[in-house]
Amino acid sequence: MALFITFEGIEGCGKSTQLCLVAEQLRQQGYGVLTTREPGGCAIAEQIRALLLHPDHDILVPKAELLLYAAARAQHVEQIIRPALQQGQLVLCDRFCDATLAYQGYARQLEIAAIEHLNHYACSGLQPDLTFWLDLPVHIGLQRARQRNEDDALQHEQRFEQQDRQFHEQVRQGYLQLHQQQPERILRIDATGTVAEVTKRIATLLTSRLHAAS
Amino acid sequence: MALFITFEGIEGCGKSTQLCLVAEQLRQQGYGVLTTREPGGCAIAEQIRALLLHPDHDILVPKAELLLYAAARAQHVEQIIRPALQQGQLVLCDRFCDATLAYQGYARQLEIAAIEHLNHYACSGLQPDLTFWLDLPVHIGLQRARQRNEDDALQHEQRFEQQDRQFHEQVRQGYLQLHQQQPERILRIDATGTVAEVTKRIATLLTSRLHAAS
Repeated sequence: MALFITFEGIEGCGKSTQLCLVAEQLRQQGYGVLTTREPGGCAIAEQIRALLLHPDHDILVPKAELLLYAAARAQHVEQIIRPALQQGQLVLCDRFCDATLAYQGYARQLEIAAIEHLNHYACSGLQPDLTFWLDLPVHIGLQRARQRNEDDALQHEQRFEQQDRQFHEQVRQGYLQLHQQQPERILRIDATGTVAEVTKRIATLLTSRLHAAS
Repeated sequence: MALFITFEGIEGCGKSTQLCLVAEQLRQQGYGVLTTREPGGCAIAEQIRALLLHPDHDILVPKAELLLYAAARAQHVEQIIRPALQQGQLVLCDRFCDATLAYQGYARQLEIAAIEHLNHYACSGLQPDLTFWLDLPVHIGLQRARQRNEDDALQHEQRFEQQDRQFHEQVRQGYLQLHQQQPERILRIDATGTVAEVTKRIATLLTSRLHAAS
């Protein structure tokens, strides 16, 4: 069973935690699971990630940023994601093309058509089979993200989290539009409540999809 | 007088040396001159250059490589080249879009139309006013490049120079086709002979163009 499943949402929505927990459940059910993340997922793409997320790089122009995401994605898809799918694994990825549309397109207002073209080129057409959009109000997400940064000293990856609240509101609206355009692929998950509650919401939807696909 | 002038050719053709000498002549004639290079030309793009040219990165997939060049170019154009042109400088650049077409397109056989699209996007349409293609037989170029690498320990940038001779032959044919498609912009310079002889060939053509443009 090869399926490409992505997790999306604003900062602090809990997608990385949920991805990890869902992967663990799937492994216990006997599935072969690869977990990965964007930007990153392989050595070269992680080096590109470091360029993208370092707070010193505020000078990065929007087009260069977009092209760096596309470069990291092209490498990640060819080196990691596509081979794992060909081996019949479930691939769970923390962010993918929808994030670029939500952040660079809807929030930073780069041309959507240009982003779609670049995404398509970088992935050679690969699309997620299923996307969990973990949705929650911006003020809760930012509060969680701030808490996490204080906890684990991830200060060097704070570039996006330093953006103002209005920006994150635009990102959320971007995800909403993507969900409305592709409701079959992009499932909205209520990401408020406890970690266990959110995991259960995802697992319920995922189980029915896996049964439908098997 | 703002003009964007690029220097192109295979490894060892002498373009970096010639660019430096021509810039010096132009400065002595009173022109404001900015010299730069691709990939690179600014801090972020130089970091991308390091990713691209390090011999350990043989695993880099062709699309990721192409997108990294485009990212470095987008940053370089917006941060360095366009502002210098707006200030009325002569900008002399060591490699630009034609190199991507010659190396990734004609030699590595990525789709030409896709490269042209990416180049256009990365530059927001900026094109060189004038390009000197320093042409010489591949075996002479590679001999010179090898000599230089032994001399100045540039071994960490040898990735392209490790390619075989047939590859460089395809690059040269690529430049020939670009020259034939745009003979007004891309001028072929015989790059055999001494450094001073080649400089004189370039200077003669450049002087007449500068007079025509002024």
